[in-house]
Amino acid sequence: MEHQRILTRELGQHVGQQVRLKGWLHRLRKLGEVNFLVLRDRAGIAQCVLGPADLAPLHGLLVETVIDVVGTVVEAAQAPGGFELHQVTVEVISPVHDATLFALYKNTIRATLPTFLDHAVVGHRAPDRRAVLKLSSGVMAGFRETLRARDFTEIQTPKLVASATESGANVFGVEYFGRNAYLAQSPQFYKQIMVGVFERVFEVGPVFRAEPHSTTRHVNEYVSLDVEFGFIRDHFDVMALLTEVIRGILGYLQQHHAAELKLLDVEMPILPDSIPWIHFPKAQQMLHDQFGVTDALGEPDLAPEHERLLGQWAKNEHKSDFLFVTGYPMVKRPFYTHPDPADARYSNSFDLLFRGTELVTGGQRLHLYKDYLEAARRFNYPLEPFETYFETFKFGMPPHGGFAIGLERFVMQLLCLDNIRLATLFPRDIHRLTP
Amino acid sequence: MEHQRILTRELGQHVGQQVRLKGWLHRLRKLGEVNFLVLRDRAGIAQCVLGPADLAPLHGLLVETVIDVVGTVVEAAQAPGGFELHQVTVEVISPVHDATLFALYKNTIRATLPTFLDHAVVGHRAPDRRAVLKLSSGVMAGFRETLRARDFTEIQTPKLVASATESGANVFGVEYFGRNAYLAQSPQFYKQIMVGVFERVFEVGPVFRAEPHSTTRHVNEYVSLDVEFGFIRDHFDVMALLTEVIRGILGYLQQHHAAELKLLDVEMPILPDSIPWIHFPKAQQMLHDQFGVTDALGEPDLAPEHERLLGQWAKNEHKSDFLFVTGYPMVKRPFYTHPDPADARYSNSFDLLFRGTELVTGGQRLHLYKDYLEAARRFNYPLEPFETYFETFKFGMPPHGGFAIGLERFVMQLLCLDNIRLATLFPRDIHRLTP
Repeated sequence: MEHQRILTRELGQHVGQQVRLKGWLHRLRKLGEVNFLVLRDRAGIAQCVLGPADLAPLHGLLVETVIDVVGTVVEAAQAPGGFELHQVTVEVISPVHDATLFALYKNTIRATLPTFLDHAVVGHRAPDRRAVLKLSSGVMAGFRETLRARDFTEIQTPKLVASATESGANVFGVEYFGRNAYLAQSPQFYKQIMVGVFERVFEVGPVFRAEPHSTTRHVNEYVSLDVEFGFIRDHFDVMALLTEVIRGILGYLQQHHAAELKLLDVEMPILPDSIPWIHFPKAQQMLHDQFGVTDALGEPDLAPEHERLLGQWAKNEHKSDFLFVTGYPMVKRPFYTHPDPADARYSNSFDLLFRGTELVTGGQRLHLYKDYLEAARRFNYPLEPFETYFETFKFGMPPHGGFAIGLERFVMQLLCLDNIRLATLFPRDIHRLTP
Repeated sequence: MEHQRILTRELGQHVGQQVRLKGWLHRLRKLGEVNFLVLRDRAGIAQCVLGPADLAPLHGLLVETVIDVVGTVVEAAQAPGGFELHQVTVEVISPVHDATLFALYKNTIRATLPTFLDHAVVGHRAPDRRAVLKLSSGVMAGFRETLRARDFTEIQTPKLVASATESGANVFGVEYFGRNAYLAQSPQFYKQIMVGVFERVFEVGPVFRAEPHSTTRHVNEYVSLDVEFGFIRDHFDVMALLTEVIRGILGYLQQHHAAELKLLDVEMPILPDSIPWIHFPKAQQMLHDQFGVTDALGEPDLAPEHERLLGQWAKNEHKSDFLFVTGYPMVKRPFYTHPDPADARYSNSFDLLFRGTELVTGGQRLHLYKDYLEAARRFNYPLEPFETYFETFKFGMPPHGGFAIGLERFVMQLLCLDNIRLATLFPRDIHRLTP
């Protein structure tokens, strides 16, 4: 029986032939006269039909045992994929001695979230979990493909930094050869620096936020999909690129991951040719006038409930699951944000709401050295620790901007998961550092 | 003059037309009657010809000024790219007030390494530096493309971990909400865990090594290209995949980055259909017998000088810039290494030498739970902190193996750079945390 291994998805090419499959014992259904062994490999599952005599040698076989199965391929409309194996012999490659905590063949694992996360090393083998993580890899691939096609260069910037960049509050400290270092909260400064080198850059990498609260929408380490590019007119060029990137990602998923989208019953979002946008004070006025919201006007930011209402409005009025809110007040934006030239209270920045929740923050940045000096002074931001960052602007930077998409946040909202931890491979939060 | 911006590489499509370029003032050569302004954009450079009257308004213009240039395209065999701009008007987008430290138009920056690194935010704009970093992005893209085509799934594993994995000595500590955490020295455990989910996985991400020495070949944070896959026979399957990956990367560079390879005058390595291999004790015997090396026999590892001699031998005897050394003694390999079933003193692992220097370490791993318990006992490795890692093997893991390529090491050796810091965007070492 020296057959080469084939994959479960290839059975249809071998009808009537003897083939070899290798994988995990996904399920064993003992019904008496006819019994079903389901094998799982990286491509999917296959059903093997066993008579009572075939079953005897498998006594005590536990799920997740790694097995080598040889059998004959038979067409069977009722089998998963339309084919099954008959006249089967099974050999054990790696035995299992304990029962798994979860029934992995069930599409939704019935366990509490902490129990699932504690045992995710095995739990992720369930087809629905695998589909979530596969789609996550597809989002990264679609992101990169869209940007490479537009002449963007991939960079990998340092995660160990000498100073907290965005804000001193939520940064993790590292002991670095007797000195203090920090984990990068974002590649913001580095991606701007690299606009000076390549004009157009992107990065896919981890970022670290030491926020000590525990919510369903935050983890302390996540994957950031970062973009920055030069020679823009203003933030509307950034919004246009972001729209193309979202379209590119969704297109990539539909082209390469249709099976996973189907398995998870994903409702693909409505993305119009051009995503509607609303200016920040106008959004507040509308919340007040149309939705009777009394606590929005004059505030420098939107509350989650406001975002939810605006998302509803975009869906109803513009048939869009996405909405840009532009021009957030300068007081709530980081010092490198470019002000609106027409009204310096507001910024050339935006949030992208996806199904009523913030998904992306982006905008135009300052690009003139003198503006950086002025902003650092106004924000009381120290120049010395960021000397090399400011040096970049001293030597010529074009008008530029960019954005950052949280990978896990995107997957969570696309799949309507109710906790970001379910969109994260092995989440890190204030209580959790393992697995 | 409402022309859309075009790129320097597109000049040939607009001969005789007025066009707009935007970019950096790369060089200004004042010769009197005929003067040359060289503009640099993300695509390359373009020469603009100025008469004495055109030059006057540019008085005081410094290199790296961001400019907007309108002019008429003329064929000119002697110009870079074969075209240049005449009848030029120049507008300043972002001014520069200081002279740069480096002459960026020179292909090799004449500065000491520390000075260059201190000012790399601007230094990386030099065409040769840009080419190095562009090739680095190409290595990542070629790596991913080769693996995706072979059904590998991309993962992003946590960089904050609860325990040091590889060895306690060279790990960075992080203060994590009042607890101790560490920066991941490699994704080794996680990529093995994920073989249980996807069979075949890869990751491109940062790893952190707190090694307190400063050499030309080590930095403390680098990008690791990690691979792990299941259902292998032994480490020779891993070596075969690694050979395909190297071939895929080199092919990608030749296809997509020919200009950078040419600019840097890169001699592409000789990669035979099958990379030669030599078993560890046989390599030591040969070093002794053929090269008169007296201190190799019986040692558990190869010294850099030994690797250099073996690289020379592979080049002379096998016309190969690559050589596998297989079967390193178990005593020098991590506890999860699979022993050679025929002789347990040696391992089913390998190093890949590239031009006489170690580039990759890889091999087959243990896959049976009982073998992990036994290895942990023998190596005195604690079970408790890695409970979830060991849990993976309890629930069925196929024979598997993998490898890790250091991105910067690969680029350094491919380009024959004499310091790994020159293959790193912003290097981190015992003395350096900025830029």
